[in-house]
Amino acid sequence: MKKTIAVLPGDGIGPEVTDAAVKVLQSIAMRYGHTFHLKHAVIGGEAVDQFGNPLPEQTIEVCEASDAILLGAVGGTKWDNNPAHLRPEKGLLNIRKHFDLFANIRPVKAIPALLASSPLKEEVAKDVDMVIVRELTSGLYFGEPKRRSEKSAVDTLVYTREEIERIVNQAFEIARTRRGKVTSVDKANVLETSKLWREVVEERKAAYPDIEVEHMLVDSAAMKLITNPRTFDVVVTENMFGDILSDEASVITGSLGMLPSASVRSDGFGLYEPVHGSAPDIAGQNKANPSAAILSAAMMLKHSFGLHTEAAAIEQAVMGVLEDGYCTGDLAGSGKRVVSTEQYVTKVIEELERE
Amino acid sequence: MKKTIAVLPGDGIGPEVTDAAVKVLQSIAMRYGHTFHLKHAVIGGEAVDQFGNPLPEQTIEVCEASDAILLGAVGGTKWDNNPAHLRPEKGLLNIRKHFDLFANIRPVKAIPALLASSPLKEEVAKDVDMVIVRELTSGLYFGEPKRRSEKSAVDTLVYTREEIERIVNQAFEIARTRRGKVTSVDKANVLETSKLWREVVEERKAAYPDIEVEHMLVDSAAMKLITNPRTFDVVVTENMFGDILSDEASVITGSLGMLPSASVRSDGFGLYEPVHGSAPDIAGQNKANPSAAILSAAMMLKHSFGLHTEAAAIEQAVMGVLEDGYCTGDLAGSGKRVVSTEQYVTKVIEELERE
Ligand SMILES: CC(C)[C@H](C(=O)O)[C@@H](O)C(=O)O
Ligand SMILES: CC(C)[C@H](C(=O)O)[C@@H](O)C(=O)O
Repeated sequence: MKKTIAVLPGDGIGPEVTDAAVKVLQSIAMRYGHTFHLKHAVIGGEAVDQFGNPLPEQTIEVCEASDAILLGAVGGTKWDNNPAHLRPEKGLLNIRKHFDLFANIRPVKAIPALLASSPLKEEVAKDVDMVIVRELTSGLYFGEPKRRSEKSAVDTLVYTREEIERIVNQAFEIARTRRGKVTSVDKANVLETSKLWREVVEERKAAYPDIEVEHMLVDSAAMKLITNPRTFDVVVTENMFGDILSDEASVITGSLGMLPSASVRSDGFGLYEPVHGSAPDIAGQNKANPSAAILSAAMMLKHSFGLHTEAAAIEQAVMGVLEDGYCTGDLAGSGKRVVSTEQYVTKVIEELERE
Repeated sequence: MKKTIAVLPGDGIGPEVTDAAVKVLQSIAMRYGHTFHLKHAVIGGEAVDQFGNPLPEQTIEVCEASDAILLGAVGGTKWDNNPAHLRPEKGLLNIRKHFDLFANIRPVKAIPALLASSPLKEEVAKDVDMVIVRELTSGLYFGEPKRRSEKSAVDTLVYTREEIERIVNQAFEIARTRRGKVTSVDKANVLETSKLWREVVEERKAAYPDIEVEHMLVDSAAMKLITNPRTFDVVVTENMFGDILSDEASVITGSLGMLPSASVRSDGFGLYEPVHGSAPDIAGQNKANPSAAILSAAMMLKHSFGLHTEAAAIEQAVMGVLEDGYCTGDLAGSGKRVVSTEQYVTKVIEELERE
């Protein structure tokens, strides 16, 4: 298979972890006889510095000429006081919108070897296995009017039926490949958009008689994610709620540095990035955990290229390294051997070659 | 002191737990020489059934003629399919708005005797002691336009400078009586309302040089509440974020049935209610944990009536009962003796008389 991948390392630890993921992709290409053509481009703070634009035209062109995007992370204190259009995260918001990447998919799965790092009791966190499906290109993030005056400010939460339908369909499709349960999260007792959301979920349910559907208010969901995380399979929700709940969920298993994400549209094109941020405090120190970036590359292989065997091989290799007791500093603990980012990648590639 | 208190038992376990709180208030009145004039009125589902209105005019009149409001809980599956204006929670939203109860105050404090019930590791949950201050009468809940069409729906997130100022002031004032730290939670990298919010916090800070102020994005806050809950002292945020984060925070300490809340305006008038819901599944069974209602009554004494000694006496009595090993079914565990709601109240009153 021949594919072109846009690689956007971004800021902070972004370059280190995308480097790691690229090495793993190259190893996969060699072993399985694929050609991955990698084209690097800038995004975020680095792009602001170089081009005065967090998502320069050149970068968009590179992405448009590619089959998928691999992103590191954006942001850093250096740009924190920039005006909105010159902030790193604007690059992220723009690329989502430009490519219509409406479905943000975040698996959260407990890794037995890492449960000790969870803030939750092990009996609460163990066996957690859920996917959060967040609408990513509408809602409060993009609704108009969105403006400021001296005395007040307004943001607009707007959803069309079509926007809800396509994300809900995604969630149902994902649930079919899993335990067959969808939890739709809204605030239907207060918001009009949530009432429409709930209606659409009820309508789409008819097309998926095999799927169990449950509606949950966002405040309840925020509680249940902590008290009973195992009860969730697929969670689907709107943009702002998804931002909050997916970050909340990311700490359940104690392995934030392990979590990949995909932001996709219906034709399979997508952007893949770690859930963690740019961690400027440890950037350039060969310390970052590259697992999330590596597993994001695996999601790309599976989701955008249909390479399921290759994706599974990567996941297995990462788990193998962890089970052998190796980890980066973020997961240090008794019985663990802390290695550098580069050593960790080498271990992952060795595992891949052994499989 | 002579005070009139409106008692709105509401639905589910609401009547049982407000009964309990009323008994405690009566014991306090007797012991400390106060007169609490109690006037009962209906709200929520019960009010829908009796008057076709979740907040009938009669109830508003009773509350207007009172010095504070004690509320049980509203809601139940029976009314779940009612149109919005006939749903129990509409009574809650209306009473907040009618009385301009803009500040929702929710203390979350770890109780050593109950840490075993926390979903968090004991070393994470222990010593947690924070107050969440949520704006309660503006934002997405009430902003206009708020409407539905066949093909789309819209809600509006709007804040004025004054609305933000008064809630931020509240938070600063509360911080002064505590550890002197305010965490303001927003989504300033995406929302215009959040940028205004952050500006106002920065402005108000000048008047409170003794207070340490930190800004945190809502997604980060959702993570830190779980990974590092002890770092929070006073958290202040807008209505929708506050709804989500305060419910998330309510499960940290493992004692949801213990958590009181106050919804107040600037002149001291306020509504006091448990954080927990109406729990229809155990209603009428003399099983509910009345602690949250009792502690809400204590908050009323302190906040609306300035009766600090009496409030502290109630808090101490409840802790005493727990330390003696008594609890209601929700907190059952090894070394605990489960008692009924009524037995529990009797224990609390005995403790009060012993103090
Ligand atoms: C950086 C920020 C704009 C972004 C968001 O809120 O969507 C981030 O938090 C995320 O979840 O990817
Ligand atoms: C019942 C509901 C409308 C209410 C809210 O969202 O404010 C509740 O969740 C609360 O937090 O008091």
